[in-house]
Amino acid sequence: MGISLLVKNCSELITLAGKHPRKGVEMENIGIIKDGAVAILNEGIECAGKTDEVIKKVEITPKTKTIDATGKLVMPGFVDPHTHLVFAGTRETEFELRLKGLSYEEIAKRGGGIKNTVRATREASEQELLALAKIRLDRILEWGTTTVEIKSGYGLDFENEMKLLRVIHELNRIHPMEIASTFLGAHEVPEEQSKAEYINLIKGMIVEVSKMSLAEFCDVFCERGVFSYDESLEILKFAKGHKLGLKVHADELSTSGGSLLAGKLGAISADHLVYPSPEGLQLMKKRGVVAVLLPGTSLTLKSKNFAPARKLIDMEIPVALATDFNPGTCLIEGMVVIIGLGCLLLGMTPAETITSSTINAACAIGRGDRIGSIEKGKQADIIILNIPNYKHLSYRFTTNFVRYVIKKGKVVVSTE
Amino acid sequence: MGISLLVKNCSELITLAGKHPRKGVEMENIGIIKDGAVAILNEGIECAGKTDEVIKKVEITPKTKTIDATGKLVMPGFVDPHTHLVFAGTRETEFELRLKGLSYEEIAKRGGGIKNTVRATREASEQELLALAKIRLDRILEWGTTTVEIKSGYGLDFENEMKLLRVIHELNRIHPMEIASTFLGAHEVPEEQSKAEYINLIKGMIVEVSKMSLAEFCDVFCERGVFSYDESLEILKFAKGHKLGLKVHADELSTSGGSLLAGKLGAISADHLVYPSPEGLQLMKKRGVVAVLLPGTSLTLKSKNFAPARKLIDMEIPVALATDFNPGTCLIEGMVVIIGLGCLLLGMTPAETITSSTINAACAIGRGDRIGSIEKGKQADIIILNIPNYKHLSYRFTTNFVRYVIKKGKVVVSTE
Repeated sequence: MGISLLVKNCSELITLAGKHPRKGVEMENIGIIKDGAVAILNEGIECAGKTDEVIKKVEITPKTKTIDATGKLVMPGFVDPHTHLVFAGTRETEFELRLKGLSYEEIAKRGGGIKNTVRATREASEQELLALAKIRLDRILEWGTTTVEIKSGYGLDFENEMKLLRVIHELNRIHPMEIASTFLGAHEVPEEQSKAEYINLIKGMIVEVSKMSLAEFCDVFCERGVFSYDESLEILKFAKGHKLGLKVHADELSTSGGSLLAGKLGAISADHLVYPSPEGLQLMKKRGVVAVLLPGTSLTLKSKNFAPARKLIDMEIPVALATDFNPGTCLIEGMVVIIGLGCLLLGMTPAETITSSTINAACAIGRGDRIGSIEKGKQADIIILNIPNYKHLSYRFTTNFVRYVIKKGKVVVSTE
Repeated sequence: MGISLLVKNCSELITLAGKHPRKGVEMENIGIIKDGAVAILNEGIECAGKTDEVIKKVEITPKTKTIDATGKLVMPGFVDPHTHLVFAGTRETEFELRLKGLSYEEIAKRGGGIKNTVRATREASEQELLALAKIRLDRILEWGTTTVEIKSGYGLDFENEMKLLRVIHELNRIHPMEIASTFLGAHEVPEEQSKAEYINLIKGMIVEVSKMSLAEFCDVFCERGVFSYDESLEILKFAKGHKLGLKVHADELSTSGGSLLAGKLGAISADHLVYPSPEGLQLMKKRGVVAVLLPGTSLTLKSKNFAPARKLIDMEIPVALATDFNPGTCLIEGMVVIIGLGCLLLGMTPAETITSSTINAACAIGRGDRIGSIEKGKQADIIILNIPNYKHLSYRFTTNFVRYVIKKGKVVVSTE
């Protein structure tokens, strides 16, 4: 059968073929093919290789659409495995206060922080939340992200958490972006309840989420002043019992047991990791937990410390990058910006940041077998950028060079 | 006479009216008018104020074009007072090497760094350089910058330095962007000459530049291993004798005397200032030298230190921000990104970064009386952004929210 789409003459084709943390965690070799091509049949990749070899192998018919990528970089669509993208309200005033010297924790104590967004999000209707999130997804897609994880966590009661998860579900249905959904009821304790009461409510929500298939993952903000190690353990064990994958907001502001918890439970990912414990990292390595690093958040929080990316890579823990897009601590939309920060703030190499934002990020949301690389059998999620090689991504990290976004074999963004 | 353009119903109009370092260096009060309007007659601002008051004051005719800025921020176009925007070649490979541990100085010793760009720029024709720079200016204009300073300094011989200055001159003629031109022959010592020989050549070039009005300013890279304090002094004194304004690449990588030099000579600006000396700062304050800070460069160089912005502001030295756009150490195009970094890396407040990227930046290139604020008599350089207030600029600093760019009263970018 003739292929549906051919992308040819790529200056550089980055395949990441054969890579998967399960098969080895080497991150520097990203599978570069000069003068590469990708042949796509419907939603999937038929083959990838040198342009002349691909053209010989596949059947090109008058119906085959062709994109000439001369001078351009072609690579897997970015995967952003950690966002809080559905919310109402903005927090620019609080951002300014923090710049003038107030700490995140001080602002939270004054009723700001997450609680501020919770108030606005509870007041917003499903339609309003959907409209706001759609605009954000449009922009993120234009930056070349083709799959994104979104967490609930600004509802903090039964009705509003379910509202958020329904919005995420609906976005996935109507938008070209593919969305992995995470239940983060344990994002904060609501003002109206004691923590014990709320943990009980979270369990009730987990039962419902599981029954209605409203999320793939359950996440907990394990942190001093939020949920303790024991409380987080209780919630995540319950979620595991209800067949949800596990994620942890781990050791973001202090060494709070998050990496240890993720390692012990064999979570799919442990995120933030600015202050992980040595035992936590050892367990994470043993259990193959993906470390999702969020340098945009550390920058926005003016943190003096950053996640120890080089140490994690040297330990052979698979590292992914994400935006952490949220109204309080990071509003960076483009994964390419995060790639730049991965290099400049975390000490990663340009190639490592690409592995981190594609195949490793896909593994952080359980999709490593389907997306994150360009090779036969994988879903055709591909971006074409107006730069000649991968190094330009980090070298020019605040410019959006994306010219085409292909999702499931279909061109969903084209600026040429 | 009827006005030509009316921008009305602005959610916030930032005027910076009455501000100028000569009149006082306070940077936090940026002249916010809620529900503001600006009336433009041809190239100039006729009046600015509350929408209802402006409408009463001016004559609106059928020929008056109107832009409804409901929900939007309206402010002076950004001024970027330090770039090296005309060059050929890119240096992404060197960028990767630096990320893998080589220092800027080590790369320079191996023939990389500025010399790398000098080779490519010497080989490029005037037409090629013009085409490359035009693309960059287009993008920078889209980010809301309406005036930019560009330096020569990648020619390092008579023919090629003049070629660069002619390209800058031609760009200013053909592009909507307004350009301030700076002669930076003293950017590096070319491989083919001794430093003494080259300093003589620089003097010859200064004579020509002055005679042919090819630049407004003369700049020197005063730094360990480049031009010493005495050499820089010799060059700048000569330039002053030939009626060029003075600028200094000052104390970027070490305390090299640059701020002292700028203060002693009463330069219009001292730029970088990561390691200024106390005496240098005292003299800068006394002489009203504008401090141009370049946080994108410090970030790209993975510097542990940043320009002491708070100290400069507390000393009442006028602070400006700039991109330093160049192929080696910063390829950030948008002043809004620099505004974000000014807050997050330099400790400035959101309002201070706005003063720094408008009126103070205009003063750093001798245009503070003509541009950089919105008030009667000033040139109509205005941008309209799809954000409700100024705080969103730093809060969401990697997204381009510019919807209209007005240069000399004419809409030159419109994305609505």
